[in-house]
Amino acid sequence: MGFDYVHGYSQREVGRLLDQAGTLSELLHCDTRFPAGSRVLEAGCGVGAQTVFLARNSPGAKFTSVDVSADSLARARERVRAAGLENVTFELADLKSLSFPAESFDHVFVCFVLEHLADPLEALASLRLCLRPGGTMTVIEGDHGTALFHPEDHLARRAIQCLVDLQAKAGGDANLGRRLRPLLHQAGFDRVAVSPRLVYADAARPEWVEGFTRNTFIAMVEAVAGEVLAREMMTPAEWRSGIEALRRTAGPDGVFCYAFFKGVAVR
Amino acid sequence: MGFDYVHGYSQREVGRLLDQAGTLSELLHCDTRFPAGSRVLEAGCGVGAQTVFLARNSPGAKFTSVDVSADSLARARERVRAAGLENVTFELADLKSLSFPAESFDHVFVCFVLEHLADPLEALASLRLCLRPGGTMTVIEGDHGTALFHPEDHLARRAIQCLVDLQAKAGGDANLGRRLRPLLHQAGFDRVAVSPRLVYADAARPEWVEGFTRNTFIAMVEAVAGEVLAREMMTPAEWRSGIEALRRTAGPDGVFCYAFFKGVAVR
Repeated sequence: MGFDYVHGYSQREVGRLLDQAGTLSELLHCDTRFPAGSRVLEAGCGVGAQTVFLARNSPGAKFTSVDVSADSLARARERVRAAGLENVTFELADLKSLSFPAESFDHVFVCFVLEHLADPLEALASLRLCLRPGGTMTVIEGDHGTALFHPEDHLARRAIQCLVDLQAKAGGDANLGRRLRPLLHQAGFDRVAVSPRLVYADAARPEWVEGFTRNTFIAMVEAVAGEVLAREMMTPAEWRSGIEALRRTAGPDGVFCYAFFKGVAVR
Repeated sequence: MGFDYVHGYSQREVGRLLDQAGTLSELLHCDTRFPAGSRVLEAGCGVGAQTVFLARNSPGAKFTSVDVSADSLARARERVRAAGLENVTFELADLKSLSFPAESFDHVFVCFVLEHLADPLEALASLRLCLRPGGTMTVIEGDHGTALFHPEDHLARRAIQCLVDLQAKAGGDANLGRRLRPLLHQAGFDRVAVSPRLVYADAARPEWVEGFTRNTFIAMVEAVAGEVLAREMMTPAEWRSGIEALRRTAGPDGVFCYAFFKGVAVR
């Protein structure tokens, strides 16, 4: 694939992406419903983590889910088939060079994709052309700058910063969430409405501690261990200490917070 | 007064506190209702910004609102009188040496107070003794570590850090919000439930840009200008630049986020 994806495509990573979607789906997508008969483009479907949720919640809509990775697409297809859903068509395509005719879709949905692109504004502007006038664009992105935890630890902070730096090196922006409003506005969309979704995990919410703090966020940081150490961004001892500190935020008196940003706008 | 309050007691500051409560009341207090006949202690009522909202929403409850500043208490009393509320009694008292008999109250409410105390755990433990068994404790605190904005700017960050450092110097912790769960747990409370409240302000929500970003957060940072410059924590040029950068987050393509933490627990 011609795409330097910071999170990697390892089996474990796929597991993380699926966990992430399972835990977060309700929070992120509960208010996304597409009318029966509408044509929806899911741009960058990855392994289909969101696809299943979307297609199930809008059973009358017709989804076209595209991704740049044939391997991810195969997994997404399998996942949708296993869920017994028949309203999704998959296509191998690069977001940066989509060949759909102008105004082909009533709605476009993009989740955890812009953060990996060197020019998210251009991507939004090009996706906008796929939309009919009056059609909606839905974008969801995280922002690592929102990660807040207790106990605080400066090596945990540095470990997270390594992930941000590696994503920047790959041309992306792990802190993109906060920019959704200006990006959608500058890309020419109207009626931009951003609503953040805050994840809060402490011992009173063990399913979030397990599903989000451990299996999503910490797993995502740990996934770049090899590259961080190979590039000597942290010493092995520093890295271990930072990861241990992150794990304490999932402990009995630990706290972890993270915000996702969801933007909906109209062409 | 024997209390080094980082935000000061100037007229402007009082205005800020009132603005803050007006804009945020619904978000922070909408789910706080005390039953008719219940005895409620508001510990640290300040100028009565929260008092009016609480007393109006629980007209049958009897509030005892205490503060360490006679001046603030006079303003709170006037405010409650102007609102036509008759279910509040005021008392001059120091949170650190309350003289109420044990188990005097059914509920205790504390808002924006623990962040200013050197030993918030001790304060919670002592407030717990004022509660009857089964009574509830409600605590609301901000956390400046949650401040997230666009455009990002390192002098804006430093200006905020000055506020955090000054509050720490005065014995407080401007980043206390994230610690509500461990503090309540360690103070001996049961069934601790923390729910964060996220403020998000962009051009689509002008009332939040004005009421929160400008008149609450930026005003709070600006209020320590004199002390920052007197202590040479930043040069005048750096400070001006940092404040200007903060103001850009309230501009047409600016974004500002902040999270408050609300904890409810049971004795």
